[in-house]
Amino acid sequence: MHKLVFLLATLFPVPLAVAQSQPQLNLMPMPANIQLGTGQLLITQSFAVSSTGYRNAVGADILRFQEQLSRQTGIPFRLKPGVAPVFEIHSEHGRQAVQKLGEDESYELTITDSHAKLTSQTWLGALRGMQTFLQLVQITPAGFAVPAVTIKDQPRFPWRGLLIDVSRHFIPLDVLKRNLDGMAAVKMNVLHWHLSDDQGFRVESKRFPKLTEMGSEGHYYTQEEIREFVAYAHDRGIRVVPEFDMPGHSRSWFLGYPELSSGSDPYTLEGGGVDPTMDPTREQTYKFLEKFVAEMARLFPDAYFHIGGDEVDGKQWDANPKIQAFKQAHGMKNNQDLQAYFNRRLQKIVAKNHKIMVGWDEILHPDLPKSIVVQSWRGQASLAIAAQQGYSGLLSHGYYLDLMWPAARHYAVDPMSDAAANLSPEEKNRILGGEACMWAEWVTPENIDSHIWPRNAAIAERLWSPQEVTDVSSMYSRLNAVSLDLEWLGLTHRSARTHMLQRMAGDADISALQMLADVVEPVKDYNRWDDAKQGPIDFHAPLNRMIDAVYPESDVARRFNDLVHSFVLSGYRDKAAEGLLRNQLSSWRDNDAGLRPLLDESFLLEEDAAVSQNLSALGAAGLQALEFLDKSQTVPDSWKVSQLALIEQVKKPQAGLLLMVVAPVQQLIEAAGGQIPPN
Amino acid sequence: MHKLVFLLATLFPVPLAVAQSQPQLNLMPMPANIQLGTGQLLITQSFAVSSTGYRNAVGADILRFQEQLSRQTGIPFRLKPGVAPVFEIHSEHGRQAVQKLGEDESYELTITDSHAKLTSQTWLGALRGMQTFLQLVQITPAGFAVPAVTIKDQPRFPWRGLLIDVSRHFIPLDVLKRNLDGMAAVKMNVLHWHLSDDQGFRVESKRFPKLTEMGSEGHYYTQEEIREFVAYAHDRGIRVVPEFDMPGHSRSWFLGYPELSSGSDPYTLEGGGVDPTMDPTREQTYKFLEKFVAEMARLFPDAYFHIGGDEVDGKQWDANPKIQAFKQAHGMKNNQDLQAYFNRRLQKIVAKNHKIMVGWDEILHPDLPKSIVVQSWRGQASLAIAAQQGYSGLLSHGYYLDLMWPAARHYAVDPMSDAAANLSPEEKNRILGGEACMWAEWVTPENIDSHIWPRNAAIAERLWSPQEVTDVSSMYSRLNAVSLDLEWLGLTHRSARTHMLQRMAGDADISALQMLADVVEPVKDYNRWDDAKQGPIDFHAPLNRMIDAVYPESDVARRFNDLVHSFVLSGYRDKAAEGLLRNQLSSWRDNDAGLRPLLDESFLLEEDAAVSQNLSALGAAGLQALEFLDKSQTVPDSWKVSQLALIEQVKKPQAGLLLMVVAPVQQLIEAAGGQIPPN
Repeated sequence: MHKLVFLLATLFPVPLAVAQSQPQLNLMPMPANIQLGTGQLLITQSFAVSSTGYRNAVGADILRFQEQLSRQTGIPFRLKPGVAPVFEIHSEHGRQAVQKLGEDESYELTITDSHAKLTSQTWLGALRGMQTFLQLVQITPAGFAVPAVTIKDQPRFPWRGLLIDVSRHFIPLDVLKRNLDGMAAVKMNVLHWHLSDDQGFRVESKRFPKLTEMGSEGHYYTQEEIREFVAYAHDRGIRVVPEFDMPGHSRSWFLGYPELSSGSDPYTLEGGGVDPTMDPTREQTYKFLEKFVAEMARLFPDAYFHIGGDEVDGKQWDANPKIQAFKQAHGMKNNQDLQAYFNRRLQKIVAKNHKIMVGWDEILHPDLPKSIVVQSWRGQASLAIAAQQGYSGLLSHGYYLDLMWPAARHYAVDPMSDAAANLSPEEKNRILGGEACMWAEWVTPENIDSHIWPRNAAIAERLWSPQEVTDVSSMYSRLNAVSLDLEWLGLTHRSARTHMLQRMAGDADISALQMLADVVEPVKDYNRWDDAKQGPIDFHAPLNRMIDAVYPESDVARRFNDLVHSFVLSGYRDKAAEGLLRNQLSSWRDNDAGLRPLLDESFLLEEDAAVSQNLSALGAAGLQALEFLDKSQTVPDSWKVSQLALIEQVKKPQAGLLLMVVAPVQQLIEAAGGQIPPN
Repeated sequence: MHKLVFLLATLFPVPLAVAQSQPQLNLMPMPANIQLGTGQLLITQSFAVSSTGYRNAVGADILRFQEQLSRQTGIPFRLKPGVAPVFEIHSEHGRQAVQKLGEDESYELTITDSHAKLTSQTWLGALRGMQTFLQLVQITPAGFAVPAVTIKDQPRFPWRGLLIDVSRHFIPLDVLKRNLDGMAAVKMNVLHWHLSDDQGFRVESKRFPKLTEMGSEGHYYTQEEIREFVAYAHDRGIRVVPEFDMPGHSRSWFLGYPELSSGSDPYTLEGGGVDPTMDPTREQTYKFLEKFVAEMARLFPDAYFHIGGDEVDGKQWDANPKIQAFKQAHGMKNNQDLQAYFNRRLQKIVAKNHKIMVGWDEILHPDLPKSIVVQSWRGQASLAIAAQQGYSGLLSHGYYLDLMWPAARHYAVDPMSDAAANLSPEEKNRILGGEACMWAEWVTPENIDSHIWPRNAAIAERLWSPQEVTDVSSMYSRLNAVSLDLEWLGLTHRSARTHMLQRMAGDADISALQMLADVVEPVKDYNRWDDAKQGPIDFHAPLNRMIDAVYPESDVARRFNDLVHSFVLSGYRDKAAEGLLRNQLSSWRDNDAGLRPLLDESFLLEEDAAVSQNLSALGAAGLQALEFLDKSQTVPDSWKVSQLALIEQVKKPQAGLLLMVVAPVQQLIEAAGGQIPPN
């Protein structure tokens, strides 16, 4: 991870020239075309919106727009009859009652110093343009205002999604709704709702009530709630694609309906051991699914229906003699063939209900019709192969928010890069877009927002904006602004950390704790838990530790890294940068002393003592390095050896936390040691 | 105000000895009796609650208790059947379906290192005891725990209320609900809902629909919402007393029903000029009120019904010849007599609907029956007179949260002090308690929480705890803890400031702005607005300025003041205190430079430039004073003169803000100038 941060700084050395040549409006995703005008349009209390062209049922959307503008500015707008509108919206047409993939989302927004006009082909495009307008609002010496600008915009990909797993940890609807608001703000248009998995089945079925009665521990959505939620998403221009993961990842189904499974274990949600899998050889299974899919297809209006299909380990199949006999009888060579058989049967059921089947990489099989959509957790190469075979695809590899990657790393992943770059235009058209994935092993309603935001906005930009928009420095600057804007939607991605740190600290002052939290990140990828060593995850365990509270990406560390980089580039002569570095390093050096009483008084903070000491040691080491650089002294070998030993030690994760300022301090130490010559 | 802060510090010179002799549990209100035991009871994931004795419909309350405990600790409790409960609740009886004044709220809570037991006569008492348990939860080196303790507790007064005005600014139900949660946490038991006033009528009336159609601008509660809200309050042990202010403060009624008024103006909610008043001389008025009160009496189940009755200026009566003729014909000497006539008629209507009438001081008149309750905004003397005449009373004088007083000043107000102290025991019994009042001229849903909390908790303690509980230092220490706890209820009294400051700052870093916000308070009493000079308040104006964002009371200033006081008491020899003072003063001195770019870029911050400069000047002056004290130098007269001139200048409010660290810096300057001799 440290290597990665260092690498990023090297790859993107603060390209100010590029950033400055673009108009730096705080828009995310960046629109396809921007032309800056002169002046700005003031937003006063009499700001009024009108709509022409298509006019049915748009009032609620305009009201919501005004309420959001009111939250951002603190201005209660007073719409007086007869006052000429400042913001005119003209849409030629309305929207589909069920939002369609590829429905026109383009819009044009023209703002002068006296007027704003938004035009679009569809009301869906108008919704996107209103979000752009809201992002343009800024405070100025003259008042709240939007700059004069002409924007012509449309998305690069038609499918820009976020998967939220509500099975591992149940996420209530109010939390999901504020995330829909966030998605709308960054123009994402698909919520992929991962509704069932081993750990819980989350949708009421009237045909099969034991699915939730026995498989949800009481945490599920009623059908009435789902209908209301789907309507909420539709109002914001977001499709809801349900996923019911089959034939694997389905233990929760078997508590109520063990006859569906390939084994005969008594099932519990805690599980462990062999992964329970549906029995694809019994006709009863398909009879169940006929009824189940028909019920769910009516409940979820979207044209797409996700059947999962991932990670079938086949152990339960291998252990079941009847299933083995079935395979032999049907000339199936392996479990892949058996799963393909299941998928073909399932696809027919899905199609009979007028839905298009979506599944993960593993469903790709020549026997399946070209109409299906493959979602790839494996990478662009998988997508390219599928596209060449005539299948449509979505990229999720590289967009897993639960892996705790920095925004820049997600941002660098393009669905059309690598193997996909060499596809024919027709094949490229089959790549519909992508989806960020919020798998919920380690999130709760309390910290899910901070695990999604703001990083998800960088993925949203990748999927909406032109491929050439890749400036990381500009991205981070705009990400900071959009992150602040998202707070007005009620998202808790920033505020929850404060509450969680305070919980750990009792009623003590938390400023020292915040300083530590500012420079750590959770361990990356799947390094938090090792099933082989630690056994299955306890999904009921409290998630109230430091690793659960901190942000996945440390802004403070990134900026410190940039500062060290620019200090090094100056040949160690930039005194302003040096002063800032000294202040920061001194604060870190002194922080452990301030934090000590808290660490001693709280069982939740006890484990963070080592990382706090490490930060202090790094601060001291960095300050010494600056001393040596300042005096151009020759550095004693013993110092070099001891400092590099320190670096090796503090690189190790402590309590699941990585100290993110190791690499830049190492750079200072190596510079002082003469290993990095001044420019 | 500065004088007051200084005075408080003098009156209550950090009485550590007293505070330490009390068991310092973070309870607020302080229980009547506490006996500390040995050890503590750990709260683990298997923490379970049982109830015995009265058992009807208590499950929801226990579930809510566990959810709150879960939020505080981050532990998802898993109740396994067969596990022995850790926390037993035994209540002899249930609760009244409509909560009664004086219903038994006592409870006993006994906690050992293995078990907790709560016993009460009524389930209402059990609810109070559960809140005490929640406040006892703390983080320790061993885990979350409650200390071993025996508490026997009951309230001092049976009526402990909070008035919320929803007329001047409409407050939605979700905001009110979280405030009910806050009230329950500090054992308040009455929400006094000020539902109508000149600026808006907030309750749906099916008999008189134009009250809200024309008098609410669409901001009102439906009857269904009210029933649900009253039930929500009841669940938390809170009575809801509605107030419909009559015959004054009633302009909003007249938009729909001008015939009720004493004038013939066309009415608008904005108003201004003469205060519209009901016409007490027309029989039609009483026919209207017969129907209206009957409808509202059914909607609000509480036994008490508040008719307002305050501030009738009589101008509209004086200007109406028919009303003058009526007065003459009935031998009324003045408008007080006319209002008493109205009140007698109204009281009969209220009584006919089986309700007890409550009104402000002005309703007190010998013609009214002793059953009415007088709420005093005038003071204890009014209450005492009423009690002597046989009337029951409530104190609100001294508890007006909109006056921006510090918690200590409210805390010092006792319903039984001054004139009330000399009442006979029987007369004293007529003083039922008191109510904090949140008048809503200057609050919105965004900042109302911070105007109520945490100060309201100090008033709650005054009304619940024994009269002898008056230690201000202990109060502030516990207030800090309870303020943090209240955050888990969703109250935004701390977090809203961050959002509001960020709004003013755009996407800039707000740390310098927070440093300024930390040491200012809004002007006090009614000094924000002078009707005579500025005309009527525009209740539709944005409340998004610094004065709207900052806390009514500055903790930083209070602590700085304490620190200066203790430094002075040490004879200027306490080097640790001096170091802290220096750090703080330096930060203030340097803050203006950091804040300058923000002030220049934001129209909302422009007005705060002077107060920022003043803080810097104070920081510099304080540092100079410390220099002189340090060197025991004779201070040049010119310095003294210039510094005291500075003090005079920075005392003046700027943009409605008072700099709350003037007094302690003045103390340092006077000390350096030899005006305060060292001890």
